[in-house]
Amino acid sequence: MTTNVGIVGFRGYSGMELERILTAHSGVTPWLLEHRADSTQEPQPIGHSGPPRIPCTAEAASDAGIQIVFLATPPEVSMELAAAFVSAGIRVVDLSGAFRLVTPENYKHWYKSDHTQPELLREAVYGLPEFNRAAVPQARLLSNPGCYPTAANLALRPLVQAGVIDLTRGIVCDAKSGVSGAGRKASLKTAFSEVTENFSAYSLLDHRHVPEVLMNSAIQEEDFSFTAQLIPIHRGILETIYFRAKGVTTSAELLDVYVNAYRNEPFVRLYPAGAVPDLRGVNRTNFCDIGVRLDSKTGRAVVVSCIDNLGKGAAGQAIQNMNLMLGFNETEGLL
Amino acid sequence: MTTNVGIVGFRGYSGMELERILTAHSGVTPWLLEHRADSTQEPQPIGHSGPPRIPCTAEAASDAGIQIVFLATPPEVSMELAAAFVSAGIRVVDLSGAFRLVTPENYKHWYKSDHTQPELLREAVYGLPEFNRAAVPQARLLSNPGCYPTAANLALRPLVQAGVIDLTRGIVCDAKSGVSGAGRKASLKTAFSEVTENFSAYSLLDHRHVPEVLMNSAIQEEDFSFTAQLIPIHRGILETIYFRAKGVTTSAELLDVYVNAYRNEPFVRLYPAGAVPDLRGVNRTNFCDIGVRLDSKTGRAVVVSCIDNLGKGAAGQAIQNMNLMLGFNETEGLL
Amino acid sequence: MTTNVGIVGFRGYSGMELERILTAHSGVTPWLLEHRADSTQEPQPIGHSGPPRIPCTAEAASDAGIQIVFLATPPEVSMELAAAFVSAGIRVVDLSGAFRLVTPENYKHWYKSDHTQPELLREAVYGLPEFNRAAVPQARLLSNPGCYPTAANLALRPLVQAGVIDLTRGIVCDAKSGVSGAGRKASLKTAFSEVTENFSAYSLLDHRHVPEVLMNSAIQEEDFSFTAQLIPIHRGILETIYFRAKGVTTSAELLDVYVNAYRNEPFVRLYPAGAVPDLRGVNRTNFCDIGVRLDSKTGRAVVVSCIDNLGKGAAGQAIQNMNLMLGFNETEGLL
Amino acid sequence: MTTNVGIVGFRGYSGMELERILTAHSGVTPWLLEHRADSTQEPQPIGHSGPPRIPCTAEAASDAGIQIVFLATPPEVSMELAAAFVSAGIRVVDLSGAFRLVTPENYKHWYKSDHTQPELLREAVYGLPEFNRAAVPQARLLSNPGCYPTAANLALRPLVQAGVIDLTRGIVCDAKSGVSGAGRKASLKTAFSEVTENFSAYSLLDHRHVPEVLMNSAIQEEDFSFTAQLIPIHRGILETIYFRAKGVTTSAELLDVYVNAYRNEPFVRLYPAGAVPDLRGVNRTNFCDIGVRLDSKTGRAVVVSCIDNLGKGAAGQAIQNMNLMLGFNETEGLL
Repeated sequence: MTTNVGIVGFRGYSGMELERILTAHSGVTPWLLEHRADSTQEPQPIGHSGPPRIPCTAEAASDAGIQIVFLATPPEVSMELAAAFVSAGIRVVDLSGAFRLVTPENYKHWYKSDHTQPELLREAVYGLPEFNRAAVPQARLLSNPGCYPTAANLALRPLVQAGVIDLTRGIVCDAKSGVSGAGRKASLKTAFSEVTENFSAYSLLDHRHVPEVLMNSAIQEEDFSFTAQLIPIHRGILETIYFRAKGVTTSAELLDVYVNAYRNEPFVRLYPAGAVPDLRGVNRTNFCDIGVRLDSKTGRAVVVSCIDNLGKGAAGQAIQNMNLMLGFNETEGLL
Repeated sequence: MTTNVGIVGFRGYSGMELERILTAHSGVTPWLLEHRADSTQEPQPIGHSGPPRIPCTAEAASDAGIQIVFLATPPEVSMELAAAFVSAGIRVVDLSGAFRLVTPENYKHWYKSDHTQPELLREAVYGLPEFNRAAVPQARLLSNPGCYPTAANLALRPLVQAGVIDLTRGIVCDAKSGVSGAGRKASLKTAFSEVTENFSAYSLLDHRHVPEVLMNSAIQEEDFSFTAQLIPIHRGILETIYFRAKGVTTSAELLDVYVNAYRNEPFVRLYPAGAVPDLRGVNRTNFCDIGVRLDSKTGRAVVVSCIDNLGKGAAGQAIQNMNLMLGFNETEGLL
Repeated sequence: MTTNVGIVGFRGYSGMELERILTAHSGVTPWLLEHRADSTQEPQPIGHSGPPRIPCTAEAASDAGIQIVFLATPPEVSMELAAAFVSAGIRVVDLSGAFRLVTPENYKHWYKSDHTQPELLREAVYGLPEFNRAAVPQARLLSNPGCYPTAANLALRPLVQAGVIDLTRGIVCDAKSGVSGAGRKASLKTAFSEVTENFSAYSLLDHRHVPEVLMNSAIQEEDFSFTAQLIPIHRGILETIYFRAKGVTTSAELLDVYVNAYRNEPFVRLYPAGAVPDLRGVNRTNFCDIGVRLDSKTGRAVVVSCIDNLGKGAAGQAIQNMNLMLGFNETEGLL
Repeated sequence: MTTNVGIVGFRGYSGMELERILTAHSGVTPWLLEHRADSTQEPQPIGHSGPPRIPCTAEAASDAGIQIVFLATPPEVSMELAAAFVSAGIRVVDLSGAFRLVTPENYKHWYKSDHTQPELLREAVYGLPEFNRAAVPQARLLSNPGCYPTAANLALRPLVQAGVIDLTRGIVCDAKSGVSGAGRKASLKTAFSEVTENFSAYSLLDHRHVPEVLMNSAIQEEDFSFTAQLIPIHRGILETIYFRAKGVTTSAELLDVYVNAYRNEPFVRLYPAGAVPDLRGVNRTNFCDIGVRLDSKTGRAVVVSCIDNLGKGAAGQAIQNMNLMLGFNETEGLL
């Protein structure tokens, strides 16, 4: 007996990754919920059409016995659909930014539009299991963290809590992402010929993912400089984080903060002191890989944090949350 | 004193390449003719705005003293604009497929729409200078060859004329192109994440560039199998051409056919017998590089033909034609 | 209870892929056999060191209870190691070209060196399960097919057997491979800056994989033109195959030959008539995807055959063979 | 009448770029000086063998009438050759790091080996024309700046001099480079399959280019955090530089510092306030493109500085220096 789960937005990169992982997951059966343009598609091999498809309605989902629906949709679509599914008693894991911030005002400030579901926003559980595992199992509406914030928070929060960052000197987070982070759509900005052999920065200092870092890692906006950049690759996020250390004087001591914080975490991997991870190591995984280097003489510190933006940054983490919500082993289907 | 020339479609890849080469050309001054959406643009460095811009009309072009206009536009736009400029006494170099075929019926068969300028079609000069140099200087309407046909005809025509291909065994032309060949536009098919780490075939046996090869190299359609394919690179075309040789028995003899045909051609380069070119060698040049290999025992032969699709396949060749039309040295600005 | 299996050459791309798939396989436990330079390595995340490592000797493998050893090594190493392991009663799956051809003379002709194990060569079973499934389970020495031949034979053999290719007109196989096909090593030819934004042909008409196609698909060398080419991607092989059809007159009829041949094959997927696969579809899978297009008027036919060169072209197929040798479900760990 | 100039290391990426630009330069004739392995080479098109080749000796260079030799060689080779050429009265432009630092001790600290030409080191002129134009024309030994330091110093020095950086809060320079920065050689680290779809950091806080930034921009090492990173592209460097501004409160005011500093500089281009350059814009040019963004509320500032590492970061700047040394227009051959 498996649990039925639904995917909305299955033609996008996160949705395709959800389908891929859930199809191999031993405890669930995925269904595809066709929303708007989803019915058109590329040619498929004969006899390999994938999971069954049903309309994207609460009724159809209920009839199919679906317990959890993943929304891999834009925020405005997620707000509308989350309300409909939750009302019908179907739990929701939302991969958009619709339910990540704390107040409607905060949402409006960063997303430049009104929040249409303030009550659901209040109820939503922020699903970064490494920090918030206890609240996940009972969630009716689970808000899956953003890709950039996942890599940043897993790197920063243990250090802030341990008090080893001199916040008066500020933190710089120089973030780089593969192109799939921009979604699957026709756009000149993400056209092959515009991106290949290029590298570009965007959203300097005002990316909408910033508040997710501030609120989770207890950092003030004035102390945090964040820039997003586009790498000519399909998937992966690498963040290079700079700060002045205090209270620790070697790479090994800095690393120890992480060792203590993540001793029992299956999805955070640490590199030996002085070594740093790269994107190859996290490709198609749910891992967050972290490495550190501290200059003992001056206290200058660098942390490199890597995830797959479609893995731990989206579909992988969403399924990690689903595992907790359905009582499976947290790593089921992900290792 | 330089000659004024105009570019329509300067925001596309061929148009950008025209602007780049013409700006460095000692004999001309380029102008940009703004057609429809051309006025919107990416941010430019302060004080480096490029050539002057004027509206895309025959009047404005005449007022600016423009002698030749390059049309880097889709066929339907080229038909309309070519008529307007030629009527106003301004010569046209058209980079689209609008005027490459011989009859309106042939155009309709391959381009799936009516030809609106049948008289201009009759008048147009097909500008592959290596085969048609004498007709170019007087042209009022110069039709610049397609990218795939340029690489194919330069490789095939000398061999067909020399009678060294056993046509009864057929010719295969397996063609591969960089993504810029699809133009500069928002499209999911050419999105970075769809193209990177991928390779795909399209227009199997019925690409609209086929008739340009047949008519220039005197080959029957039934003897010619052509497939286009997308390489995950920005620019470059490589064609691998297979046939059964007759009358020659070594790579060196086959190569000699080309040596004789291209002895005085500045833009065709030949590789030593048995060696073949690659795309790196023709990048950002107006060269067509050719190499051959013939198996003496069986007569199986392979020719590799390389061009830059934006160079000899578009803007470079257009400027080579312009040089002939304006009486410049044919290689001016191109070597 | 799982079966112990060993990997030699685990730092190469095929070896890394073997480790990745075997680690997730429910029926086996992988061991890494350290041969020569294998002990040096990149930094690994703390506590994620992978499978246990032992010396690459028959004694150490026997002590560990290893039943099957995969050799992801060059042919000359494979010849030496295969002899040692088989002598010690350990079964071998060899991914090199050492045991693929039929006679030592044939090997010497194509590999340009003497075969040192002619008796083992005689005994070796060629492991393309779709054609040779019955012989695989009992093999002591299983020779895993080459990457190019796997894609070519799966596309060609059913057509030759059905008599729908006019062999007198010849067959062209234009093959393209990702760079991992060249192995994991320092080499200027496969350096990033030499390969990116490039495309190149090599081994025109005399690639050492040719005889594997001839002998499996019953084609004469004089009728078969094969060229290998390098795509700037990590993994994947696409072959565009051209011939003149006889006895069939539509794409659908040609497709039917495959439908009949592969009705029960889990790893061959067919595209609807006129549609063709691309490399994205087979990435990290053990599938061979095939599509056809036939021009009814002239009989010109094109077949596109795609595999992942590290999947069905190497590690995936090796594990498919292992599944048969150990009595597992043939698709175990591969779907 | 042109001036004869020589290139050592012409098979490397900087050397190839020198040859390309110098061949099109109207005032000079390039010669290739064959040093060690330079005689082996890839196949060339017939009749297109490039500049004449002579042995890499002071005698041969003198006999050919060579006035300036470019050394695109490793530091240890440059030290030896610079001494030989300068002794023979031939001026040298060295592209290695051999003569960039001020003292032999400083060289030994960062390059981990002894400096064998301390007197030449004292004499060498550091050739960043925007800061040191007056000293260049008379140089016998011109030390061409490093790629990373060129982008960093052009961005930082005007700001430090204008006093608009709060140095007590530190400066972060997050640098990214294309793979050609690692040189043209066989290496697993720069193999295509290791680099594509990857991104990695190296030399965290201790890159040997750091002292060139410190000494030119008057920054203390303890206030400067620098990390180098590898982008999967062939050429280009983008540096994202973070600091806390003082004395300026808007992007426009910060930009004005650059406008004043670079008013007459042909090779520094500035973007409108709030816009930033990307690598596409500087590809194959000698430009350094700079853009800024300042958050008025908090003083957080970001500067993006882009160059082509083979252009302004190596060959382009070397030729800019040559133009000054030979009395040509500074932009000759470079615009």
